[in-house]
Amino acid sequence: MNLQTSLTDLLKIKYPILQAPMAGGPTTAQLVAAVSNAGGLGSLGAGYLSADAIRTAIQAIRAQTDRPFAVNLFVPGKKSVDAQQIAQMQELLSPWRRAVGLSDEKVEFSSEPDFMAQVEVVLAEKVPVFSFTFGIPEISIIQQLKRQHIRVIGTATTVHEAMLLQSAGVDAIVAQGAEAGGHRGTFAGDFANSLIGTMALVPQVVDHVSLPVIASGGIMDGRGLVASLALGAMGVQMGTAFLTSAESGAHPLYKERVLKSQDVSTVVTNVFSGKPARGLLNQFIADMTPHTTDILPYPIQNSLTSGIRKAAGLQNQPEMMSLWAGQAGSLSTTQSAAEIVQRIVDEAEHWLKK
Amino acid sequence: MNLQTSLTDLLKIKYPILQAPMAGGPTTAQLVAAVSNAGGLGSLGAGYLSADAIRTAIQAIRAQTDRPFAVNLFVPGKKSVDAQQIAQMQELLSPWRRAVGLSDEKVEFSSEPDFMAQVEVVLAEKVPVFSFTFGIPEISIIQQLKRQHIRVIGTATTVHEAMLLQSAGVDAIVAQGAEAGGHRGTFAGDFANSLIGTMALVPQVVDHVSLPVIASGGIMDGRGLVASLALGAMGVQMGTAFLTSAESGAHPLYKERVLKSQDVSTVVTNVFSGKPARGLLNQFIADMTPHTTDILPYPIQNSLTSGIRKAAGLQNQPEMMSLWAGQAGSLSTTQSAAEIVQRIVDEAEHWLKK
Repeated sequence: MNLQTSLTDLLKIKYPILQAPMAGGPTTAQLVAAVSNAGGLGSLGAGYLSADAIRTAIQAIRAQTDRPFAVNLFVPGKKSVDAQQIAQMQELLSPWRRAVGLSDEKVEFSSEPDFMAQVEVVLAEKVPVFSFTFGIPEISIIQQLKRQHIRVIGTATTVHEAMLLQSAGVDAIVAQGAEAGGHRGTFAGDFANSLIGTMALVPQVVDHVSLPVIASGGIMDGRGLVASLALGAMGVQMGTAFLTSAESGAHPLYKERVLKSQDVSTVVTNVFSGKPARGLLNQFIADMTPHTTDILPYPIQNSLTSGIRKAAGLQNQPEMMSLWAGQAGSLSTTQSAAEIVQRIVDEAEHWLKK
Repeated sequence: MNLQTSLTDLLKIKYPILQAPMAGGPTTAQLVAAVSNAGGLGSLGAGYLSADAIRTAIQAIRAQTDRPFAVNLFVPGKKSVDAQQIAQMQELLSPWRRAVGLSDEKVEFSSEPDFMAQVEVVLAEKVPVFSFTFGIPEISIIQQLKRQHIRVIGTATTVHEAMLLQSAGVDAIVAQGAEAGGHRGTFAGDFANSLIGTMALVPQVVDHVSLPVIASGGIMDGRGLVASLALGAMGVQMGTAFLTSAESGAHPLYKERVLKSQDVSTVVTNVFSGKPARGLLNQFIADMTPHTTDILPYPIQNSLTSGIRKAAGLQNQPEMMSLWAGQAGSLSTTQSAAEIVQRIVDEAEHWLKK
């Protein structure tokens, strides 16, 4: 048993460790490049970025590494809301806006970035690996990516979703367990029923697909890597473990909260973005949770709260920020990304030699 | 690396595989003895049994094995409800009683079995291992058990609970992950916040206690055993994996449902017993879930629904039975308990030799 797997062959990486694409700030070019330079696969969480911003980020990554890396996008859904629902949510959010000094009138409202324009950049830049969340792109897009020799990774939270991804022609599948921080990737079922723990999810997915499976959710160190390989995964994807790293762009107070978090600190909530995501419980979540049924779908809700969250970050008010984190944040460290990758490898190799 | 751990030494068993104490029927004397004879630790789920019934069961187990086995009890809580709440729930359950031919008048209502009388039997019979769920017994009871050279195992769903158990003087701790079937052991916090996936829970518990930790939740085969050992556990506890075994006393239709279940088939519900537990979604759960806030605490709710469930079992109506199961029921088999233990050991040893 060693750490070379069909996944490391597929992605041309040294170690089967993927840094999760954490959209919204943490995945700086420095972080992505550092993970890739250390032998893992760095990933740019580009879901919220415009095509131009993605191109700039890819160039910044390439300036720092010649190793493979991934770009992750959100597959757009088709949700509609009426003006009255939006007005209602704006009213509900109004006290929060005032709390961070934003006026009631000037509500930022941006539509989802243009997915096709984002994909065009991925194709034009020939990024080594493309990963996606929240659904499955048109088959023609997947085929086009593969023709460009771009490796394609989809995200599943259930066996059923994994089988859909395999049918769509992806090269590998992230099995996102319930422990995972950030957005649930669920796209073909009720999200609550799709909160399958990593220990249960991974072997069931492995038994139903023939592609390399990448375990994610609650994996923080060499113990988690070996456990995932034992379950049949060919690698791991880790977000929270890299969120607190030196190179991560997460807000310093966000990092501090994750480092001090406990197993019971997180909840799954849709109040920030309109899609369920796991994060540290704070005042905004607690106060908005009673209004869960009024929460608007992604990306509307996300647009309506993003101004508040940005202002809260600038004002160092973590109670109004989205503090995405998994259920094992207490195992996170302040090491550099390279140190984290090497520590995980050393721990795993040590255990496997016992 | 082999399968001898500090837990196998402590419990004087050959393999670090504990059959979970599934109260309410599955843990027949045959099942308990078969697991112990195969080198694991069989466990009698005795929470619902009277002292006399426990004595009889222990004698039946001893007639079939001279290996160590465990008896598991429920630590009683202190909950009170008024007559009006009970009358309200009886009215809500009335259509279900009629559906299985029970009259409205004759509602079985039994109080929780006498915990001290149950413990007296465990002490008098000098059972090799005593495990408990739903809390921590008085320290004096734990001390008395240990003076009798009875090994004591507690159940935790969070790091905090594990630390409380260690302080109380137990010998080992089951870390029950969110994937686990049956009742949540949560006793020192909100159960919803305490649904920590096994992959995240085990290493965090291991880092906070010095006792052997037993992983549970979603573990079904040799892959799960190796993964648990990699996470730092000294053994595993498996319920669903033995529920469908030949020796299990579970209803045949219950076994069939578990064997055919999927990762997404379960929910956590309190509608049957008054305590949250994971089981296969069926009609009773679906119809009672809107009344979740009216559900009475354990053991009252349990008493009020037990007549319905028993009658439903006799009438082969699984939609009204409690079908407790974990999130990886699709990996269960119809093998005998001995075959299951040996298969898990063979799979684990094969992986460890790779």
